[in-house]
Amino acid sequence: MKGLLSVRELGPDELRTMIKEASGIRDLIDRGEDHEPVLQGRCVANLFFEPSTRTRLSFELAAKRLGAHVLTLNPATSSGSKGESLRDTVLTIAAIGADVMVVRHVDQGVPQSVAEWTGLAVVNGGDGTHEHPTQALLDAVTLWRHFEHFDGLRVGLVGDIAHSRVAGSLVPVLSRLGMDLTMVAPEGWLPAETPHRTSTDLDAVIPELDVVYLLRVQTERGGRITDSYIGNFQLDEHRLARMSQDAVILHPGPMNRGVEISDDVAESSRSLVTEQVRNGVPTRMAVLRAVGWRS
Amino acid sequence: MKGLLSVRELGPDELRTMIKEASGIRDLIDRGEDHEPVLQGRCVANLFFEPSTRTRLSFELAAKRLGAHVLTLNPATSSGSKGESLRDTVLTIAAIGADVMVVRHVDQGVPQSVAEWTGLAVVNGGDGTHEHPTQALLDAVTLWRHFEHFDGLRVGLVGDIAHSRVAGSLVPVLSRLGMDLTMVAPEGWLPAETPHRTSTDLDAVIPELDVVYLLRVQTERGGRITDSYIGNFQLDEHRLARMSQDAVILHPGPMNRGVEISDDVAESSRSLVTEQVRNGVPTRMAVLRAVGWRS
Amino acid sequence: MKGLLSVRELGPDELRTMIKEASGIRDLIDRGEDHEPVLQGRCVANLFFEPSTRTRLSFELAAKRLGAHVLTLNPATSSGSKGESLRDTVLTIAAIGADVMVVRHVDQGVPQSVAEWTGLAVVNGGDGTHEHPTQALLDAVTLWRHFEHFDGLRVGLVGDIAHSRVAGSLVPVLSRLGMDLTMVAPEGWLPAETPHRTSTDLDAVIPELDVVYLLRVQTERGGRITDSYIGNFQLDEHRLARMSQDAVILHPGPMNRGVEISDDVAESSRSLVTEQVRNGVPTRMAVLRAVGWRS
Repeated sequence: MKGLLSVRELGPDELRTMIKEASGIRDLIDRGEDHEPVLQGRCVANLFFEPSTRTRLSFELAAKRLGAHVLTLNPATSSGSKGESLRDTVLTIAAIGADVMVVRHVDQGVPQSVAEWTGLAVVNGGDGTHEHPTQALLDAVTLWRHFEHFDGLRVGLVGDIAHSRVAGSLVPVLSRLGMDLTMVAPEGWLPAETPHRTSTDLDAVIPELDVVYLLRVQTERGGRITDSYIGNFQLDEHRLARMSQDAVILHPGPMNRGVEISDDVAESSRSLVTEQVRNGVPTRMAVLRAVGWRS
Repeated sequence: MKGLLSVRELGPDELRTMIKEASGIRDLIDRGEDHEPVLQGRCVANLFFEPSTRTRLSFELAAKRLGAHVLTLNPATSSGSKGESLRDTVLTIAAIGADVMVVRHVDQGVPQSVAEWTGLAVVNGGDGTHEHPTQALLDAVTLWRHFEHFDGLRVGLVGDIAHSRVAGSLVPVLSRLGMDLTMVAPEGWLPAETPHRTSTDLDAVIPELDVVYLLRVQTERGGRITDSYIGNFQLDEHRLARMSQDAVILHPGPMNRGVEISDDVAESSRSLVTEQVRNGVPTRMAVLRAVGWRS
Repeated sequence: MKGLLSVRELGPDELRTMIKEASGIRDLIDRGEDHEPVLQGRCVANLFFEPSTRTRLSFELAAKRLGAHVLTLNPATSSGSKGESLRDTVLTIAAIGADVMVVRHVDQGVPQSVAEWTGLAVVNGGDGTHEHPTQALLDAVTLWRHFEHFDGLRVGLVGDIAHSRVAGSLVPVLSRLGMDLTMVAPEGWLPAETPHRTSTDLDAVIPELDVVYLLRVQTERGGRITDSYIGNFQLDEHRLARMSQDAVILHPGPMNRGVEISDDVAESSRSLVTEQVRNGVPTRMAVLRAVGWRS
């Protein structure tokens, strides 16, 4: 595997293999065992041009658990302040000795550009409103470990789909794995074109779902929190009560409690949010291992 | 040992054992030997929600010398900016894979809350004006290595006791180890209730002390530097000259030179300040080792 | 070797030895092999009191490839905000357990002061407009690997020489290695006194050079970008066409494209800029290895 810029690079079989490998690494971590240091002597550079806690630390620990050296670029103290172009900064870090780059950027397509500029293995850590491939993979790992199958799972993707890079990766992944998707959002937040079912009425849809996947309202990318959104789309205990008995809740975090999810539902045993985060490091280990060996 | 939130968790025997272990690790470091990597594969997360150099780097090096992976949360670039609650941030980092958390926060009780939220081993790295347990332990290690006994040592704690978390941990530690404490401060900075002797007259007390422990005026926590404080409480060469011949000076740092201590006294051979810092890493290694094994 | 504060500490033979060692480490890295962890258990502290990407990450990876623990001081979140003096901060980090310090500071002479205060091995990572020793060494490594000899190479140092610490180290290094130097700059940017040839006319000089070493206009240190400078000194394709056929271009980075170098020339195959960066880590490994063993 040469980098991971988009989940569209992975066919259904590759997706399933990657998910099972990640799940196996999760088991190994749960047993308190160390992974073989297969990236020993290699260098993973974390280039987070947007603030991030969970994704950056998750990649960092994943790389360390594989034995890699980790370099972290802190954009606030970088040469950007000396007027260097993004391309020159990235080429410099490549020349310093990075073997793999993890790139997050506010603009769509930057990870792709970094891969073209450097020829290195690049993992997309989230670009603009475009994609966030490892988030979609870890979500699939979470569903796999919970349901032990994918076929026909009915997933409702609820919320600010238009501004969400999570959705950009999640929709193709879940769809290729054989799940049945419904986009649920106010009119303006539904994708313009989609082969999947859409709905503006969460209450009508919710009893039919196995998975309620809530998206964060992306206020930093133009999403706006309104009383009408909260009233019609917040997952609160009334809506939770109408969910199927085995249905679960996912959210990519960080959660806006009181917006897309109520406080008590965030704490509910139906939420797999903590499982999602737990599966982040093993999923990223599986990805870094796959791209770090060949690059 | 399940975390270290307060020194009050440690009885006199446990304190003495911990201090001797830390001193042994200090010897090992001084001989240029490596500690066994007993925390290999484990992850220590440094959550410093307040700026810190010495304590953060000291914990970081301690964890690395034990073979642990270290994750450092930089509050300035964290998801806090996306409006996530402290509890959600902490639960996320726990789920990423932290085995031990070191927590510093401007508010009292946050390390305790983190321990309750996560169930992890938490080491208090300083909370509000409450406690700073590893500082008190490393101070005790420093006194142990210097005097080779504790019983009856006469210690004067001088300065902004009211706003000091160092005092909050130091007083119970030194007292449990059998030392004789005097609190020396202007009226407003003395603790409201204390079983220990108090004084507002440093000059009267100073000849009787074996240890003069100076506290930093905590301007960031409401302490105010006044000419009257400097005149009556600064340890300058005149007061140094009136100290007992074998008496020593401690300060937790960073020092406000020209406030609680004069420039020349800060440089005096009677000061054990550098020894205190040197004992920081081995003390934190002893603590992390104790809590990291069981967690 | 006890630290590296100035290249003037190194005679011609020591320079040649260091350069060959660095080049050998570069070969080892290119073969994908690991260096022996000769600094295992030792601690390298990176004290960058000025923002830096390339130099900081380069030293960090160099130290890690030698097996050292790395502590990085982030000046923005340090105790400097509590009013501690630079000397106290540095002494504290030494006492925490640094064996080697890499120091960058806006003021000339700070690395020297740090060495005097701490007695540790200190590597100058760039001080004011004074020196930047490892930059000069890696430049020499780059020339060595390209030309396979030094004697008589005609090097033109072009640009803001007056404000450049790179020049401060480069001139003595290249000169001791037997190269023939010409300083090329507008009147105000030429050094006041120099034993080397000077010129204010790049076009007159350029056909005679084997190496065109471009300096960045140091706007942050008083350098001013003018149309006249760009017109008379920018290396553009017209000037490139007049360079000798085997002549090469170096630049310490970050490049101000459109100022001292045009966009297309920056991309030219005659540029060794990427090679310079690639030689940074092995050069710093050679230096850290030399100073870390003895300190």
